[in-house]
Amino acid sequence: MTDIATILERELGAERLVGPGHEKLEDYGRDESPFPAYYPPDCAVLCDTTEQVAAVLRICAERNVVVTPRGAGSGMCGGALPIAGGVVLSTERMKRVIEINSDDLIAVVEPGVVTGDLAEAAEAAGMFYPPDPASLASCSIGGNAATNAGGLRAFKYGVTREYILGLEVALMGGEVLRCGRRTAKGVTGYDLVAGFVGSEGTFGVITELTVKLLPKPIAASTVLAVFADAVAAGACISTLLREGVRPAILEIADRASINYVRPKSRYRFPENAGAIVLIELDGDGETVARQMEQVGMRCDELGAIDVLIASDPAERRALWEARRLISPALKDHNRTKVNEDICVPRGKIVEMLARIDRVAAETGIEIAVFGHAGDGNLHVNLLSNEDPHDPDNRQRMLMGAKMVFAHTLELRGTLSGEHGIGLSKRDYMPMEQTEQVMEWQRRWKRMWDPAELLNPGKVLPPSTKRCSE
Amino acid sequence: MTDIATILERELGAERLVGPGHEKLEDYGRDESPFPAYYPPDCAVLCDTTEQVAAVLRICAERNVVVTPRGAGSGMCGGALPIAGGVVLSTERMKRVIEINSDDLIAVVEPGVVTGDLAEAAEAAGMFYPPDPASLASCSIGGNAATNAGGLRAFKYGVTREYILGLEVALMGGEVLRCGRRTAKGVTGYDLVAGFVGSEGTFGVITELTVKLLPKPIAASTVLAVFADAVAAGACISTLLREGVRPAILEIADRASINYVRPKSRYRFPENAGAIVLIELDGDGETVARQMEQVGMRCDELGAIDVLIASDPAERRALWEARRLISPALKDHNRTKVNEDICVPRGKIVEMLARIDRVAAETGIEIAVFGHAGDGNLHVNLLSNEDPHDPDNRQRMLMGAKMVFAHTLELRGTLSGEHGIGLSKRDYMPMEQTEQVMEWQRRWKRMWDPAELLNPGKVLPPSTKRCSE
Repeated sequence: MTDIATILERELGAERLVGPGHEKLEDYGRDESPFPAYYPPDCAVLCDTTEQVAAVLRICAERNVVVTPRGAGSGMCGGALPIAGGVVLSTERMKRVIEINSDDLIAVVEPGVVTGDLAEAAEAAGMFYPPDPASLASCSIGGNAATNAGGLRAFKYGVTREYILGLEVALMGGEVLRCGRRTAKGVTGYDLVAGFVGSEGTFGVITELTVKLLPKPIAASTVLAVFADAVAAGACISTLLREGVRPAILEIADRASINYVRPKSRYRFPENAGAIVLIELDGDGETVARQMEQVGMRCDELGAIDVLIASDPAERRALWEARRLISPALKDHNRTKVNEDICVPRGKIVEMLARIDRVAAETGIEIAVFGHAGDGNLHVNLLSNEDPHDPDNRQRMLMGAKMVFAHTLELRGTLSGEHGIGLSKRDYMPMEQTEQVMEWQRRWKRMWDPAELLNPGKVLPPSTKRCSE
Repeated sequence: MTDIATILERELGAERLVGPGHEKLEDYGRDESPFPAYYPPDCAVLCDTTEQVAAVLRICAERNVVVTPRGAGSGMCGGALPIAGGVVLSTERMKRVIEINSDDLIAVVEPGVVTGDLAEAAEAAGMFYPPDPASLASCSIGGNAATNAGGLRAFKYGVTREYILGLEVALMGGEVLRCGRRTAKGVTGYDLVAGFVGSEGTFGVITELTVKLLPKPIAASTVLAVFADAVAAGACISTLLREGVRPAILEIADRASINYVRPKSRYRFPENAGAIVLIELDGDGETVARQMEQVGMRCDELGAIDVLIASDPAERRALWEARRLISPALKDHNRTKVNEDICVPRGKIVEMLARIDRVAAETGIEIAVFGHAGDGNLHVNLLSNEDPHDPDNRQRMLMGAKMVFAHTLELRGTLSGEHGIGLSKRDYMPMEQTEQVMEWQRRWKRMWDPAELLNPGKVLPPSTKRCSE
């Protein structure tokens, strides 16, 4: 029998194949997961068109070969890892911005368009694509839709799902489906689009997206408030929200995060800095200027030990610098950084931070927390300088993560606010969801992919049922 | 064989049954559809608890009896009509507001809670439930979720889907499923909740909802601008949006609508009034006051023949009066009012209004248009004073509606922006969606309800396929 790489090379052309022995094949067996994981695929195919994607899905289905779709490979949960071998289907070359329409306030794009490029193209046309995952300089819009990516502006503007109006999707077997719409609203039939969004490439491969754009806000301003501890920061956030402030972004970072960026930041943090709150306001110029002053004053009244405000773009970037430095700084100083992105009900942020401190104390694992306070979505970074290949170290880190999950669920939160489940959180799913809820999801998966050839083994753990219905 | 009404009376108690001969049974065979439609059910059951809903769905499934779920019966597309007889399952008695939580910014409610009551309960606790369908004084939150209801504020705040975080749903057969979350964000597993939202009671019966709330905006202001024609009004809207104004509400109404409210409105419309634009701004007090002045001035510069502004609640109500009077006035003066709620891409509103004028001229049907301009969602009201029971009249009106749909789709719009498909638009579905797209939706429906006993015959026309796969 001819191997799948040879068949795909013949059908799609050698220029699209990354086959056995190719120096780049290894890249398609990895993603941004914190632990070194490598799952060698048989080959990767870099498609240029919907027809090619459909052809790969048809050819592989006919031969019972599993396919793992891949966007930019920036996921941190193993969603794009070819854990069962087979073919990696990459949409990285499908980078066309097909249409930017400022009358209809939409864009039509291919899945490989880098999210930051879409945002820039929208901005150049006087519009605004709000979702801004931290990886926006490298992640792709197709991957964003597949994982329902969040980001900093989700607090005011919602997550990726709210911006995906229509999709073209290629299904396992090669069928191509166009669903959704071009209009701002629509309730014509069932919401197939919302089902594909967040299904992590297990239902189909997104080949085209129609996304909603907004008019561009005229101005923005930034407030950085430093507090002695997370309790004071949390109380300030709650008060501001209750008073009706509706910022675009509302971030928090804890003492450990601050300590990592302190040496690199141009801003000299006070010695006793125990938490920072970063607030970005957007809207018309006068409003954001005034609100910036008010919010700054209010932070001061609510116990901030330092408050900085900025409306000039360069000054705003300087305030953001500390926040942007956190993640790279944690990575630079630690051989392992397990970044869980749990989400708790908004009123439970301070309690969750206290519980994370307890986990750190109990396990001896250093933990740095920052994230999207307005949404209750915290990035809990478990840090270690031990050998990442050492199974004991890995075990200890995973146990720490599991404790974090347990506290999250006790506070009625959820395992993932924006990263997704993929492979790395799959086996924690039963901590949050009943077998019944998971079984309905498995049925939904089988509706789209009855042979379970598309990105198998992701999102849901295997069924514990002994017999089929 | 014992009839279903007798069995349900025995199992659930006589106080929950509206059985044969009951004076109220007729009510459960009607909704707010424009043409007199009456489909007598065998009985209606008014459940108080999830357990009772599940019991009805179990008992009926065992006996192969169809069930039609019903919220407040305020739908206009026949979604709640028991077209195949059987049992109407009403959630109107499930009216408990279980929790309003201002720390977590959520509410937990039963499906029978009237949407306006939920909005008031939220407001009393200093919060805000944005979705505001026009029927909010009578429609229920369960029905809103089932139809993914829109409303005036959807332009800024999104539709019902964006506010439904978690659901408890009873399935045909009696299984009860809890899905979703209590957090602002979450991507743990597939989005079952988004699938139920907008499925018009064909997937399951919603028995509890966890909804997202927002902090309450501090102030609001209203601008009413009168233009000589729809082209001038449309141009004004486009310009304001391009300039970055982000109102909570952005409504339009045409000459025919104005002429109906003219005699009733306290505001004396100019003789040559050909269109009105209503803009509501919300946010903090100073901002909305200033924006109100700016928007008013801009409307003036953009050719408005009259501009009124208001920030005082009583004055704002007066400006809204004209808009609120339109729908009742159309109904009072016409024996038939077919209200289609098509949605076009935002840049196509003026073109769509021109095409509707053509349809009116070609068919001789009087048409009044008003609606949510910011979303491209227009309520196209076909009016007639002929006998609504006269089949010729009915035929002519439906032909007019079909012409409106054809123009909508030519402009790449969609059949329904917020009302849903139900029964009345079901057979127009093939104008917009391919058989392939509808067939995937039928599979999704059968996943939840393989025997097709729950609200059968809604949303999707019967398959045209000759053989099953």
